[in-house]
Order: sequence, then structure tokens, then C-alpha cells
Amino acid sequence: MITVVAGGVGAARFLSGLLSVVPARDVTAIVNTGDDVVLHGLHISPDLDTITYTLAKAINAELGWGLAGETWSAMDALSRYSPSAPRHSTAGGTWFRLGDRDLATHLYRTHRLREGASLSLVTEEIARAWGLDIRLMPMSDDPVETRVTVDEGEIGFQEYFVGRQHSVAVSAVRLAGIEQARPAPGVIESLAGAELVIICPSNPIVSIGPVRAVAGIEAALASRRESAIAISPIIAGAAVKGPADRLMAELGHEPSVVGVARLYAPVAKTLVIDEADQDLAGSVEAEGVRCIVTPTLMHGPPEAAALARAVLAAARS
Amino acid sequence: MITVVAGGVGAARFLSGLLSVVPARDVTAIVNTGDDVVLHGLHISPDLDTITYTLAKAINAELGWGLAGETWSAMDALSRYSPSAPRHSTAGGTWFRLGDRDLATHLYRTHRLREGASLSLVTEEIARAWGLDIRLMPMSDDPVETRVTVDEGEIGFQEYFVGRQHSVAVSAVRLAGIEQARPAPGVIESLAGAELVIICPSNPIVSIGPVRAVAGIEAALASRRESAIAISPIIAGAAVKGPADRLMAELGHEPSVVGVARLYAPVAKTLVIDEADQDLAGSVEAEGVRCIVTPTLMHGPPEAAALARAVLAAARS
Repeated sequence: MITVVAGGVGAARFLSGLLSVVPARDVTAIVNTGDDVVLHGLHISPDLDTITYTLAKAINAELGWGLAGETWSAMDALSRYSPSAPRHSTAGGTWFRLGDRDLATHLYRTHRLREGASLSLVTEEIARAWGLDIRLMPMSDDPVETRVTVDEGEIGFQEYFVGRQHSVAVSAVRLAGIEQARPAPGVIESLAGAELVIICPSNPIVSIGPVRAVAGIEAALASRRESAIAISPIIAGAAVKGPADRLMAELGHEPSVVGVARLYAPVAKTLVIDEADQDLAGSVEAEGVRCIVTPTLMHGPPEAAALARAVLAAARS
Repeated sequence: MITVVAGGVGAARFLSGLLSVVPARDVTAIVNTGDDVVLHGLHISPDLDTITYTLAKAINAELGWGLAGETWSAMDALSRYSPSAPRHSTAGGTWFRLGDRDLATHLYRTHRLREGASLSLVTEEIARAWGLDIRLMPMSDDPVETRVTVDEGEIGFQEYFVGRQHSVAVSAVRLAGIEQARPAPGVIESLAGAELVIICPSNPIVSIGPVRAVAGIEAALASRRESAIAISPIIAGAAVKGPADRLMAELGHEPSVVGVARLYAPVAKTLVIDEADQDLAGSVEAEGVRCIVTPTLMHGPPEAAALARAVLAAARS
């Protein structure tokens, strides 16, 4: 049994590689929900959906998010209303593009949550609808909202990530609601019972960070440190995608595999880094972390599968 | 100034005729919201939307509801989830068809209501977005839910109307929340200040009934009885569309223009009936209601305009 801690795109790609080399039913993914957002009254879980769509081979490869073959009639129609909204309102906004087919996922999730179902249960139902055998779970059924402080004040994560295309400097990250959040059912057990724990190549601050911050998860991870392998999302000082490198630097972490090693040292005995960072292997090990060097850039399924195989080999060695 | 009391399709058609003969800015419509429903977390106001779309010449003429040139990707995608929902859940249901473009209206409305805007204000904003000059207002900003008792128990109005295509017998109608509902801002004033009050050819029980049941509206209507003209939705004992005839019969009202006259006698001095019911004019007048006979079937814009002209002429006579 393998338990992975996951964010969005990087995690989804790694998981698709992992599921090409181990049976899906042996894998549990604990997914960040700090990115979740309620828009137009709909509950949107971007990281869960990116993983679900990717593993269902339904992801929109061109966009990197949403569904393949998507149409945009609802968003086009929504833009009619934007000029009628009062200045202080955010209604009618189409900056967070929701495709027509993607909307169905949010309609279903919102409907179920309003019926009193937990996000865990709904996540399971959505995964089943897509024919997935992996066990997908949100980090928590309780709302946690990742918020970032930028020049003009504190804004929601999606406003930063999508709205400003993460092009503004961040001086602080706050996880609103984290004190009240309990791990979703099965999260602690899946960490305790796993033969191998993998921390996916996701943003250490805003993807893996929120998962670790949920009460009890950091301790559960720390107790499995010997069996845990993290994959660096930073290659040669840069994030493959997204703002991980800038966020690390802005928040006082070295934006390198060494900085990643420092962040993960409490919870992972092993860090997988890219060949481009080979000369930093010694510095990684100086952080008390075993270092594995292998190609980590996932151009497509073959590279993702090779990375998964390298991680499994590292686990056995 | 003309104030009309309105339901959905029949009212929308009459209003489009009325607005072809009087300036839109001289007309206020007080619209039934007992049919409103929250589905998938979205607030849907079918009667308001039917009127808005019809007056904007954007109605789907083929369906009689929704938007012209509609696409259905979201509904098609939603059907994927239905089999994954637990038996007791209604999530993933697609019986209430929401087109992709129509969804935008519900997204906007829901977003604004969550921001704390009143339904009146949102209704105004939506009407403005469609370029309408008529003043459209919901009967109330407070939630009222029309529920009907059928064989298996009490169900929501849309479950009856759309879900069962109103093909089951109704033994009772209940307006949940009506005791707490106050008239929307401007409703009482628009009735008090109107030169002419028109009760549209809508369902007297489940379209006009809820409007009349909101605290203060019946009294406001009654005080304007002399200036009020109702149009019978029943022609030759049958509803033009929908279950008005059956509902009237099932609930103990004569399903004829005479039954309509009895229902409207307290609030309208005049009833307009179709030529097909000419021989019942005397019976209508026996109810204490002045009777005007004219063609009332609105096949299209010319007939709707002619009906509006006949109503205006009756008001002057």
C-alpha cells in the first residue's frame, strides 16, 4: 500500500506514472483542499479535479486543467451580466474559467455537500463516476482556505494563482480555518498503514503545506519518515510550473533542492532530485536527507512512469 | 403606469404584446417566485427568467423555456455522476434541464444572493443586462416555496411541474414560508400607484395565487379592484398550456371562465375571456365581474398585441 500527499498538476502527472506501474487500488492520495474556492455558489476543488481528470485521461492537455473537448457557453453567457453587477460585487466574473462540462462536477459536488455529504464521500463518488480505482481523499472535510498577502493586502489563493497568474510577490501565506480542520476520515490511518509514503512534486508551501498543517497530519507523516520519499518540485532552482520557486524565496526559503530538503527533512528520509541538481546532492544530504538523483521532469507518460519506478526502487534500496 | 401580476409563459407572452403597444418604462411586473427552486446549489427563478428571456427575444421558442440557441454540455456531463450518487440523493439529476447559457443566469443570481443582494436587486440587474426597460420585480425577496400534495405525499412544485410533467392529481397546494414573506420593495407602491392593474393569463392557483398570498398584496389588489383587469388563462374549459384546468378542478374550483371569475372577483372588476367562452359571459357577470370577450389565444406577437390593445380599451371603457 502506497500513500501519496498531493497537490494539483505535478501530483496528477506523477500519480498517472505511478498507476502505470502499480495497481491503482494499492494507492491512496491525500489531496490539498486549501485551494478550494466557492464561486457563483459552487464548491470547486481544483486539485482534486485535476487529479481526477488526469487519471481518467480526460484532462485538457492544452490548458493543463479542466476537461478535454470542453465548451465555454456558460462563461460566455456569464460575461453578459458582469457590467450589470455593482462595483463592489464579484458576480459575473469569468476570470476563473469554468467549462460547461467541468461545471457539472461542481454542480454535483455542491448538490451533495448541500445534502450534508462530506467532501470525502463526494470525492469518492466523483472518482467512481470516472472509473478510478485509486482512493482519493481530501486532506480534510473541513474548510481550509489558503490566503496570501500581496501588495494590496490579503487575497484568496485562486485570486492570486489564476486571477493575477501568480505574478505578484507574496509576503505571507495564511491557512484560514486550519485550527478547526480535522483530517478527513482515513487520512491518518492511510499514512500509518502505508508501506511507502510519497510526497509528490507539488508546491511545498501552498500544496503540501496545507496538508501538513491539518491537525495530526504532520505528526503522522513524521512518524513515517523512514518510509517517506519526497520528490523535489524545484529543478535547477526553478519550479517546473507555477510559483513554487518565487514563493519559497519570498517566504525566506532557499529556492533550490536544498531548500526543499530543509522543508521536508522532518517528514521524509529521502528526497528525489533531478539530474540537473546532481551537484547539490551533497548539500541535500547535509540536511539529513538521503538523496536520490534521477530525471524528474515529466514530459509525458513514459517519463512519469520512469520517475515512479525510480521512487519505488529508492524505497526498496 | 401599468402594473401587471405575472406567472411564467402566459404572462411573458402577454407582456411582450403589451410592450409592443405601451412604453416598457411605464410597466411594472410583479412576478411569482413560488416556483423558485434551488438545484445543485443554484437559485433558479423560472417565472422571472421566462419573462426576461421572452421580453429580450431570447426565449427558446421550440421548448417554451430557456434560451434560444442553447447547448447542453453541462447537463450531458452531469448525467455521468447520477449513478454514483447514493439512492437517497437527488444529486446528478438532470430532469430539470439547465442549458449552458441559462446556467450563467443562475450562477449570476446565486453569486449575488450569496453576496447579500436581495432577489429584487438581482432581478433588476439581470433585466438590465438583457436591455429591458420594464420594471421586473419578484413578489417577495423572502423565500416562498409552492409545494403540492400528490398521491405519494408532498413534493416541490418543479418536481410536480417538470419532474412529473404535471400529470398527477394534486390534492393540496401549500406555500411554505408564505407567513414570513413580505412584499418586495416597491410591490405595494406599484399597485397603489398604477392607473391600471392587469392580472396576466397565468395559472390562478400556483402562479397568481402565491403573489396574492404574500402579506399585504391581496389587500393592495383589492383596493385597486376598480382599476384591475384579469385575463382568463382558461379557454373553453381548458388551460392553453400547463395544468391550470386540472388544478382548479382538483382543488374544488370550476375549471371554466366562471371559476376564474369567482377566484378573481375580489381583486378584479373586469375579466377578459376568449370568444370561445362567449356564452358564459352572463355567468361571469353573475359573479359580479364585468366581462369582456375578445380573442385571447396568443399564437404569436400579433395576437398578443391585439389582446393587450383589447385590455387597454377595456380599461378606458
